[in-house]
Amino acid sequence: VEDKILIDAFGGDNSPAEIVKGAAFAAQNFDITLVLVGKKDAICTELEKYQFPENRIEILNATEIIDVDEVPTVAIKRKKDSSVVVGLNALKEGKGRAFISAGSTGAVLAGATLLVGRIPGVLRPALATFLPVENGFSLILDVGANVDPKPEYLAQFALMGSVYSDNMTGVVNPRVGLINIGAEKEKGTSLTKEAYKLIEETPEINFAGNIEARDIPFGKAEVLVCDAFTGNVILKYTEGLSQALLERIKKEMTAGVSRKIGAALLAPAFASLKKGFDYKEIGGAPLLGLEGLVVKAHGSSDSKAVASAIKQCIAFIEKDIVYKIKKKL
Amino acid sequence: VEDKILIDAFGGDNSPAEIVKGAAFAAQNFDITLVLVGKKDAICTELEKYQFPENRIEILNATEIIDVDEVPTVAIKRKKDSSVVVGLNALKEGKGRAFISAGSTGAVLAGATLLVGRIPGVLRPALATFLPVENGFSLILDVGANVDPKPEYLAQFALMGSVYSDNMTGVVNPRVGLINIGAEKEKGTSLTKEAYKLIEETPEINFAGNIEARDIPFGKAEVLVCDAFTGNVILKYTEGLSQALLERIKKEMTAGVSRKIGAALLAPAFASLKKGFDYKEIGGAPLLGLEGLVVKAHGSSDSKAVASAIKQCIAFIEKDIVYKIKKKL
Repeated sequence: VEDKILIDAFGGDNSPAEIVKGAAFAAQNFDITLVLVGKKDAICTELEKYQFPENRIEILNATEIIDVDEVPTVAIKRKKDSSVVVGLNALKEGKGRAFISAGSTGAVLAGATLLVGRIPGVLRPALATFLPVENGFSLILDVGANVDPKPEYLAQFALMGSVYSDNMTGVVNPRVGLINIGAEKEKGTSLTKEAYKLIEETPEINFAGNIEARDIPFGKAEVLVCDAFTGNVILKYTEGLSQALLERIKKEMTAGVSRKIGAALLAPAFASLKKGFDYKEIGGAPLLGLEGLVVKAHGSSDSKAVASAIKQCIAFIEKDIVYKIKKKL
Repeated sequence: VEDKILIDAFGGDNSPAEIVKGAAFAAQNFDITLVLVGKKDAICTELEKYQFPENRIEILNATEIIDVDEVPTVAIKRKKDSSVVVGLNALKEGKGRAFISAGSTGAVLAGATLLVGRIPGVLRPALATFLPVENGFSLILDVGANVDPKPEYLAQFALMGSVYSDNMTGVVNPRVGLINIGAEKEKGTSLTKEAYKLIEETPEINFAGNIEARDIPFGKAEVLVCDAFTGNVILKYTEGLSQALLERIKKEMTAGVSRKIGAALLAPAFASLKKGFDYKEIGGAPLLGLEGLVVKAHGSSDSKAVASAIKQCIAFIEKDIVYKIKKKL
C-alpha cells in the first residue's frame, strides 16, 4: 500500500478550484504525496496557479462527475469513470491509504461500503465527526451512514469511536456516552435501551451511560454514540443554531451607538468564538470500519477545509487506525 | 365543565413554594379561578404570604407526591391520592378545563392518557412546545410522548399542531415541516418516508416538506413534526447549546480591560437575547389530543413560568382548542 492520499477533485460546491488549491497548499506544507482524482486537463489548469514540490501531487484521470442530486447507489453503479468510483477503487487497490471527497454524501458512503469493503467483523461502517463542545471537541457517530441501525451496530460504533478518539485527540480511555432522552438506563427507544445493555457489557468501553442532549455542549463524554438520524440532526442543528445565535448577537450589537462601540471592542472575542464552531477547522468526517480511510469533507469545503482534511488523514495513517480497529474487533 | 384551571402544587423542583406563588400572581392579575391540588395545609401556609382575590383560588386536597425517579405507570396506579392523579381525575370529571404540572413528565403523560383519555380518533397524544427561532417561535411536536411512533401518528401530530399554532399564534394556515436529514422526499428513515407521504396527502395541512435541522433556527415552518426522541433531543440541545454559547461569550468578554467595557455596553443586547431563549417566557408544553388540556411545565419552573403556563391555558380555553381538534379529525 502506498502512503498517498487520494482526493476527489470534482466533489463539493467549490470544486475543482478550491479542492486543488487546498491540495497545493498541503503539498507545499506537509510531507505527503497527494493524488488528485478527476478530469486531468481541468486539474492541470488549476494546478498551474500554485507553487509546490512537483513530486508531491499526482493526477488520476476520471472523466465523470456524480452530482449531489443523483440517487447514490445508481450513480455508483452507472458512473464507473466518476472521480468517486475511480478514487475508491484506487484506495481498494492500495494506490493510496485514504480518500477524501466533498461530494455527495450518499454516493461516497454507498461507494465506500461497496468498493472499499468493511473490516472483517464490522457490521456497518459509521460516519464520525468532531462536534465543538466546552474546552474542545467530542467525537459523534453515526452522523450519516445508518438511519435505522440495530443495537449491535451502536455497540460497535462505541468501540470504533473510542479507538479513533483515543488516537486522534490523545485522551486516553475516552468516556463514551449514549445519546438519549433521559439519564436512566431504562429511558429511550427500544434501540437505545438495547444498545445501553450491549455497551455496558463491553469491558473495553469506558461507558459514561446515557447523555442527554442538554449536556452535550458541556463535554461530558469524549465519544457520543447515536443513530445517524439523531447524529445528523445534532450536527446540522449545531451549525444552524450557532449561526443564528451569532447573527442575532450581531444584529443586537448594531442597534445603537453605544452598542456599536461595544461590538467593536468585542470583535476579537467573537472571532475566537466563531472559530470554535467552524467546520473548516475541524476537517472531514471519517467513515470508520472500512479497509481503508474514507473521509467525507463538508459540501461547501474551501481550500482551508481541504487542507484540514488532508492533515487529519496524515494523522490517521501515522496512527494506523484501521489496524487498531481490527485489533479491537 | 367549570372554567377553572387545576394546578399540581406538588410537582417540580421548586414546589410547592414557587407553584403557589405563581398561582397567587395569576389570581391577582388574570380573571380566572385556580384550583391548587396537593397537601392542603402546606398550600395554605404558602398562600398566606400573598394578596389575591380569595374567590379565585381553591384547594383540592391530595396527600401523596409522585417523585421524578418513580416508574411512571406504577406510580400512577399506586398513588391514587397523589396530586397528579387527583388533579387529572378532577379534569376528567369536569372540575376544571386544564391541568398544569411541573412534576415527573412520565407520570403526567402516562396519567393523562390513562385518566383523561383521548379525543375519539386520536391515535396518540403528542407533547408540543414552542421553540425559539428567528423572529419568533415554531411549535415542535412530539417532544416527549412517543419515542417509537408510527407514521400515522406523525400525520395526526401535523394536523393537531396546525390547529394549536393557528389559534395560539395567529399565523393563519401555518406551514408544517417534517424534521428530516435531507430536503428530498425520499430522504430519512422508514418512519419519515412514510410520514411524508401521509402528510402530503392531507389537504388540510400546509405542508412545507422536509426541514433539515440546520434550517430550524431560521423559522422555515411554524409547525415542526417529529418523533419524541428527535423532538426531545432538539429541545434539550437548544437549551444546552444556547446556554453554553452565552457562557462562552461571557467568558470571552471578561478576558481583558477593553473587553470588559465592551461587555458592559452590550449588556442590554444580551438580556434581550437571553430572554428569547428562556423557557420561563414560553409557558408549558401542552399534551395535544386529549379530552381536556394537560400542560407539562418545565421541572425547574419558578413562579414566573407557572404564571406563563396559566396564561397559556386561559388562551387555550378561550380558543376551545379541544373542540377545534375534534372537528379536524
